[in-house]
Amino acid sequence: MLLELEARKTKQLPRGLMLANVFRAPGRFGLEEKTIPQAGPGQAVIQIRLTTICGTDIHIVRGEYPVREGLTIGHEAVGVLHQVGIGVEGYEIGQRVMTGAITPCGQCEPCLGGDGSQCGGALGGWQLGNTIDGTQAEYVLIPHAQANLTRIPDGLSDEQVLLLADIASTGFAAAERGNIRLGDTVAVFAQGPIGLCATIGARLLGASEIIVVDPDRNRLKISKQFGATVALESGPDVTERVRELTRGRGVDTAIEALGLQETFENALRVLRPGGTLSSVGVYSGHLKVPLEAFGAGLADRNIVTTLCPGGKERMRRLMRLVEANRIDLTPLITHMFSLEDIGQAYELFGSRHNGVLKIAIRVS
Amino acid sequence: MLLELEARKTKQLPRGLMLANVFRAPGRFGLEEKTIPQAGPGQAVIQIRLTTICGTDIHIVRGEYPVREGLTIGHEAVGVLHQVGIGVEGYEIGQRVMTGAITPCGQCEPCLGGDGSQCGGALGGWQLGNTIDGTQAEYVLIPHAQANLTRIPDGLSDEQVLLLADIASTGFAAAERGNIRLGDTVAVFAQGPIGLCATIGARLLGASEIIVVDPDRNRLKISKQFGATVALESGPDVTERVRELTRGRGVDTAIEALGLQETFENALRVLRPGGTLSSVGVYSGHLKVPLEAFGAGLADRNIVTTLCPGGKERMRRLMRLVEANRIDLTPLITHMFSLEDIGQAYELFGSRHNGVLKIAIRVS
Amino acid sequence: MLLELEARKTKQLPRGLMLANVFRAPGRFGLEEKTIPQAGPGQAVIQIRLTTICGTDIHIVRGEYPVREGLTIGHEAVGVLHQVGIGVEGYEIGQRVMTGAITPCGQCEPCLGGDGSQCGGALGGWQLGNTIDGTQAEYVLIPHAQANLTRIPDGLSDEQVLLLADIASTGFAAAERGNIRLGDTVAVFAQGPIGLCATIGARLLGASEIIVVDPDRNRLKISKQFGATVALESGPDVTERVRELTRGRGVDTAIEALGLQETFENALRVLRPGGTLSSVGVYSGHLKVPLEAFGAGLADRNIVTTLCPGGKERMRRLMRLVEANRIDLTPLITHMFSLEDIGQAYELFGSRHNGVLKIAIRVS
Amino acid sequence: MLLELEARKTKQLPRGLMLANVFRAPGRFGLEEKTIPQAGPGQAVIQIRLTTICGTDIHIVRGEYPVREGLTIGHEAVGVLHQVGIGVEGYEIGQRVMTGAITPCGQCEPCLGGDGSQCGGALGGWQLGNTIDGTQAEYVLIPHAQANLTRIPDGLSDEQVLLLADIASTGFAAAERGNIRLGDTVAVFAQGPIGLCATIGARLLGASEIIVVDPDRNRLKISKQFGATVALESGPDVTERVRELTRGRGVDTAIEALGLQETFENALRVLRPGGTLSSVGVYSGHLKVPLEAFGAGLADRNIVTTLCPGGKERMRRLMRLVEANRIDLTPLITHMFSLEDIGQAYELFGSRHNGVLKIAIRVS
Repeated sequence: MLLELEARKTKQLPRGLMLANVFRAPGRFGLEEKTIPQAGPGQAVIQIRLTTICGTDIHIVRGEYPVREGLTIGHEAVGVLHQVGIGVEGYEIGQRVMTGAITPCGQCEPCLGGDGSQCGGALGGWQLGNTIDGTQAEYVLIPHAQANLTRIPDGLSDEQVLLLADIASTGFAAAERGNIRLGDTVAVFAQGPIGLCATIGARLLGASEIIVVDPDRNRLKISKQFGATVALESGPDVTERVRELTRGRGVDTAIEALGLQETFENALRVLRPGGTLSSVGVYSGHLKVPLEAFGAGLADRNIVTTLCPGGKERMRRLMRLVEANRIDLTPLITHMFSLEDIGQAYELFGSRHNGVLKIAIRVS
Repeated sequence: MLLELEARKTKQLPRGLMLANVFRAPGRFGLEEKTIPQAGPGQAVIQIRLTTICGTDIHIVRGEYPVREGLTIGHEAVGVLHQVGIGVEGYEIGQRVMTGAITPCGQCEPCLGGDGSQCGGALGGWQLGNTIDGTQAEYVLIPHAQANLTRIPDGLSDEQVLLLADIASTGFAAAERGNIRLGDTVAVFAQGPIGLCATIGARLLGASEIIVVDPDRNRLKISKQFGATVALESGPDVTERVRELTRGRGVDTAIEALGLQETFENALRVLRPGGTLSSVGVYSGHLKVPLEAFGAGLADRNIVTTLCPGGKERMRRLMRLVEANRIDLTPLITHMFSLEDIGQAYELFGSRHNGVLKIAIRVS
Repeated sequence: MLLELEARKTKQLPRGLMLANVFRAPGRFGLEEKTIPQAGPGQAVIQIRLTTICGTDIHIVRGEYPVREGLTIGHEAVGVLHQVGIGVEGYEIGQRVMTGAITPCGQCEPCLGGDGSQCGGALGGWQLGNTIDGTQAEYVLIPHAQANLTRIPDGLSDEQVLLLADIASTGFAAAERGNIRLGDTVAVFAQGPIGLCATIGARLLGASEIIVVDPDRNRLKISKQFGATVALESGPDVTERVRELTRGRGVDTAIEALGLQETFENALRVLRPGGTLSSVGVYSGHLKVPLEAFGAGLADRNIVTTLCPGGKERMRRLMRLVEANRIDLTPLITHMFSLEDIGQAYELFGSRHNGVLKIAIRVS
Repeated sequence: MLLELEARKTKQLPRGLMLANVFRAPGRFGLEEKTIPQAGPGQAVIQIRLTTICGTDIHIVRGEYPVREGLTIGHEAVGVLHQVGIGVEGYEIGQRVMTGAITPCGQCEPCLGGDGSQCGGALGGWQLGNTIDGTQAEYVLIPHAQANLTRIPDGLSDEQVLLLADIASTGFAAAERGNIRLGDTVAVFAQGPIGLCATIGARLLGASEIIVVDPDRNRLKISKQFGATVALESGPDVTERVRELTRGRGVDTAIEALGLQETFENALRVLRPGGTLSSVGVYSGHLKVPLEAFGAGLADRNIVTTLCPGGKERMRRLMRLVEANRIDLTPLITHMFSLEDIGQAYELFGSRHNGVLKIAIRVS
């Protein structure tokens, strides 16, 4: 399914213009010409080589997550440093760089207090493709570049690091925030790309048994390659099955990686007293807490939620895991399209057909 | 309202019998004669001098929290060591002792893993007056005595330590688990006895501003004596008021000390991104999570729940706070009754009249 | 001892020049004319109103801590915002501001990893009066201004916040890093300004007994006003005394606030197994670990060292403690001198005469 | 080198007697007849099937670590439950069980406070083969059996779990206490059995690069099988090599697994500012802290020491890692002897010849 890149058409664009995938209205988006951004103080411009489509982008183009009309979509950037603004130091034009999906400033109160993803206010660390133009374009402006530009070691390919920006950082964080001790049992609800990364994360952090739950048999199969020890198909008796597998004890950590009432509730139901429900799903509508599974508030159970951690130090450490051959995320990239064909890529990604997990968008 | 102790009638009881406050059916409970318990291996018997009535006991006698018919109610024990079983070492008969409301064994997997309140299983650390006979009696059998019997220093009166067993340990834990940093702003929803102890706890842990919310003006007034810096009457605009007081920032930690949808929801609404909602309320019915206040699961907000921590090491440290004059809980004891009049005490406590906060029950 | 400010002489200085206290050689330092600094990108210039002398400055002028010839000394800045460089946003010229002694950039790997004091490398967060011109001057250039400029609320005087920049942040951090639980017993070795702040910090964090040790009776007396429960004069039997006071148990946390073999060793000797030695002293020469006090490495004892935490979020929270009347550091300011008389101030501070604790230097 | 078990001679022992390896004087120890112990309240007796020799045992028989004359040596017990005392519940005679080398009571103040290895006082959790008769015998009395008896799942052999009792629990704890974050770089000094387990532990917890240092090339080779990414021979330039490998940055966590001045010092020298030195070595003589490597106390460096964690919950979780095929410690067992030949086993183990790492002692 890997597509050959077509001959690029951008060369015919007038100087200073670029192609970008722009949101216009629910259901209406596509490539447009935009001016190549200029780096102001503290900013940088990356010439994109590889980006990807996230589940959130699907919500955006469908109008389920509101963004302003005219915004360039996308929040994963692997490319080449094109320009740096005043005050950005230690980088060289032409270097291969990436940034996380979340671009904390490092200098506001939340950032200095350790809440970089909430930079400047709730969800404020997520700017790319949300409040400012994003990465599904030939060039992208990176705010707070000093805190976010991450050099890519020569030994690593663009594909090897692409997924660190969001799904790996998020999925691993689901595990990191889950308070996993050596030998603990972890359940992961949903094995989409983030759930699969949570499975990898649980393994990386020393879990013994990792029980994963998903309705898709293909994803369950893949999960076993990434460290799942038991893969269960979703169904009405799945919490019962997990209880049995843990001899009635419950799991130490339950990870919710989808954002539905059902998965949230099941995660809480299989959790042992004193355990942690680590949630990285994005919820909509209503969310109810089943009180018996919550021990009426007396079972020392905890619910933690996490937005993808960003910043260059985070990216650096995740890259080290790739360099040390501890993780290989490339099997998650099931398809590749050129930027010109991004419309088809959205169609495939939204359909979940053909075993699609993640699609890489080759820009240049 | 402090009553003179009447002449004790127990002396006329046949040898080996004692008075105990026994639950029979919803709405039906009262003093009965029971056999004085005998300490088996690892157990001890305390001759009670002082106990109290907890909000949970009200739920029990009303049938809202199910216990077995015939159970002695009560879970706070201050008294004199009457008997120890085989294997209990380092204590002397006649010593003044107490135990926490929660009596962990220290030797099961949850206890050894640091979840003593969930000893042996969900809520398992709470045995007294729940699954075994409780403390509103002349004598009480203490399980796992070695882990729970706490000597009371000579300098401390029974009244000074009585409330450590449950409400202080619970309320302080609400603050301890709330991840309070020096100078943080804390909101406490509900200023009943546990909420007031949470206020004390937030102050003990170095909060700067402590904003408390309750419908009862008397309790708000008392809260200021215990460290509240702002006391707000409950009302539809209370979350707005808290937002203003924090200049739109939200509080770092919000403590829920009641167990209602409203207080839970308000606690979540005033919480800054990255903050912690620490819940010690007991919920019934349904509990809904307002998603906008939850940042749709992306705001790094955490919800932690805590059952009262027990064990003699916990009690020892809380006693040290009393000895060092860092806390004085006696103002919370607004009334005292003798065991013989415990029926009246329940009536008053249930009515919330006369400014009642906690009632001490004098047994011998 | 509070001196009247003399008529300022700076008005006669040529435009663009200022007075600064400059290090020339061991034993040789004093006021000189320097050019008023200009704020580059990301920087700011503060017009100083109040600064102070630190123990470290004494080491500097004596040549015991090496700095470059020509450096302006001093690292505490309370003043008025004079100029901001490109990229610094959200401040207004003329506002009253301060910074911590440590000025992390917030954007390098150590900063993003939570080690702001080690910004860019070992001790790298400490620049003012160490690697760049400091605060004992009429103006000071602040690096990484966005992460460090802290507005001072109108209700707080310069004197109320001056000591937050270094000794309070350091002393409190000694307690914060000491893993103090509610009701724990803490020992603090040395009650100079930082040790006194560690005493305040231990109290703020919920310690019960706080045992302090110092050779100076005056300081011991003051320590009691700041929360010490027992004040012991230094001497050969002091560790034995602490052991007795803790009934042979040892303290949970021992704070070293001086930087000598003796205090380090005593701190380790009085520590219970599993306890934490939190060190903020600056050591020179040799440091030996007495192995019996270290349990030969098997006693689960920990030694943590901390450099003053900085950054505007830290300063904001410390200011909140002042605003909420939880701390009052002004009694530590025993003397005040004008900048013109800073030589006398150094003399007094170095001599430790006249009960001097901290000296405020009034600049404008 | 695996020896065939000789025909057992114990059958000829008079009823009630057993063989035990007893310390008599420095250099003098060996098999003697002793009375089979009887389980008192809270105790149990295990009939040993497999035990091992620890480096500490070598110190004991050489008189370098003092124990009382007549003590049975050894602290790892895998066997069959022979007898339980009053108050021990939930076990069946004849079950296959083990205990950790450290046997916390779970009920004293240190245990309840989370310091089980310091049960009752410094190093108090280590009783077997230290203060009470140990495991190099046909039977062993286990104190605090309820907190320590761990059932061995049917699927696991004695050999698979033997090393969990001490070296795995210790080595893993070295990593767990080292504050390793995903992708961190770890250095481990010494690759004896505990150092090798620390290497395994660092890998289990998500380190990227694991640099190990040892003088023995055979051990360096083995370390690579257990997760080391770089194996360096000890030498004067080894800290320089580590610095280079980390591009001057230093390692995030340095583990000391031997107990010498040299390894301690090197561990500190390669540590980045803000990093943690996690020490599990047993030191003797003097220990000096090189001040420049300590940043004079200002580099936010931490030194944590850890005694082997014990208790059945710890053992259960470590067994889960074996069951889930996440660890296989059997390659560390290079030799096996029968109890009758334990003298030869000590000789070989003490000599470090023949590539010996750990010796299993087959008892029955």
